[in-house]
Amino acid sequence: MSETDSAPETTSPPPAIVLVEPQLGENIGTAARAMANFGLDDLRLVAPRDGWPSEKATAAASGATHVIDRVRVFETTEAAIADLNFVLATTARARGFHRPVLGPEEAAARTLAPAGNAVSGVLFGRERWGLTNEEVALADAILTYPVDTRFASLNIAQAVLVFAYEWRRQATASALPFAAQPSAPPASKADVLGLCAHLEQALEPTGYFRPPEMRPVMVRNLRTLIQDAGFTETQVHLLRGVVAHLEGRRGRPIPRETPAPDETVGESGPSDT
Amino acid sequence: MSETDSAPETTSPPPAIVLVEPQLGENIGTAARAMANFGLDDLRLVAPRDGWPSEKATAAASGATHVIDRVRVFETTEAAIADLNFVLATTARARGFHRPVLGPEEAAARTLAPAGNAVSGVLFGRERWGLTNEEVALADAILTYPVDTRFASLNIAQAVLVFAYEWRRQATASALPFAAQPSAPPASKADVLGLCAHLEQALEPTGYFRPPEMRPVMVRNLRTLIQDAGFTETQVHLLRGVVAHLEGRRGRPIPRETPAPDETVGESGPSDT
Repeated sequence: MSETDSAPETTSPPPAIVLVEPQLGENIGTAARAMANFGLDDLRLVAPRDGWPSEKATAAASGATHVIDRVRVFETTEAAIADLNFVLATTARARGFHRPVLGPEEAAARTLAPAGNAVSGVLFGRERWGLTNEEVALADAILTYPVDTRFASLNIAQAVLVFAYEWRRQATASALPFAAQPSAPPASKADVLGLCAHLEQALEPTGYFRPPEMRPVMVRNLRTLIQDAGFTETQVHLLRGVVAHLEGRRGRPIPRETPAPDETVGESGPSDT
Repeated sequence: MSETDSAPETTSPPPAIVLVEPQLGENIGTAARAMANFGLDDLRLVAPRDGWPSEKATAAASGATHVIDRVRVFETTEAAIADLNFVLATTARARGFHRPVLGPEEAAARTLAPAGNAVSGVLFGRERWGLTNEEVALADAILTYPVDTRFASLNIAQAVLVFAYEWRRQATASALPFAAQPSAPPASKADVLGLCAHLEQALEPTGYFRPPEMRPVMVRNLRTLIQDAGFTETQVHLLRGVVAHLEGRRGRPIPRETPAPDETVGESGPSDT
């Protein structure tokens, strides 16, 4: 298992998340957690209804204290974005603005590749009614989500999460926290053909290959099945053991009575043939 | 504003979301809402701790009743995935399985392009400790998220949301619920040059173009600025009005006293020159 570096490879500072007049501390906390999950940490609040700091926010952040501790509170949206160079405003409806409308994918790309050292930010509106037209007009572009229009209402923290995910996906080229175990090497042809031969030999006396003229086709189908399965060397050995045991049991009827508790069918020794 | 169709263009059925032994009704509801946002509606529960139906789940679903009403409850994970052809298991840590490890992007792509009419599903584990190794072993691949490893814990509903978003992003080619207002056409060269000439003429008597030998450079800089701004025809007319008013006010000192309430600076008529 190799862990990737936590810091994404980007020269642009991670975008700021600006919650405008958030009403519920829980949403602020969940937004902070969502940011922390995907490596954002600049959370700004404009006139939070219930003040700041907020115990509910801290609880809902589930330990994302580095985001909560860094929160800055502003009286106006203008003040909150004063140091930013490129600002997105999230809206769920068309508003008639002559502004580019971006999905999370394009929006994140824009915050990753601004001119020079530009700093970006994303405005999220109030739980009940979003951003005012004046607030949207402060932004350079509109961010909206590719939602199902039959159920388009995204919770603020969910909207923050999707943006943060998109940002990180692109910033880190989708770097995952762990990689697959290196695959066991596939079995050699000799192992695979050995298994095929063993299986055919075990089937020979059972009457499986009937009528005899069908034998070549049946053998070919079995060999294709086994080769295409892509078994590893270990799995081929496992299957040789299975065939050996089944072969050993040939002719022994499966008992009709319930086996005794300590008798495990299939693990019994060589059969009575 | 043109709304896109709600139904994504995909022939594969949308993947099922399987919550294994979810503990909190709220999380089931929030997961249902996240699914509805991005067009998923097949939610399956394996032995939910507090039973089903759940008032808390319904409340947290915020109206995603079409998902809640369709929920199916199973006693075992095996039963919940019996009809599926391709199953992903979400895990936050490497588990030493010889399974492909996919991010949301690849995982969603796999559920969109399975062989034939295959149906896919994604397993999400318990809030506290995820999926058992036996449950992960039921899956064809592991799904994990490109999280910041310093804060990797994703809430179940958040994990469902990110997967659902990725699925829809790819299923609909990022179709957004609304498009930008069609841009107003850019101003004609004649309009732009007319504005430049007007501005230069207005500046001429103010002493702006000094020293005189700098005039050509100063004119060029102004014209470049105006042309590069990409103004629309309407905006050029707006700026002509601005220049006309400033020009009219030339030489009239800005009053130092506070203007009377009904006197708006800048909207006064032609000046006293």
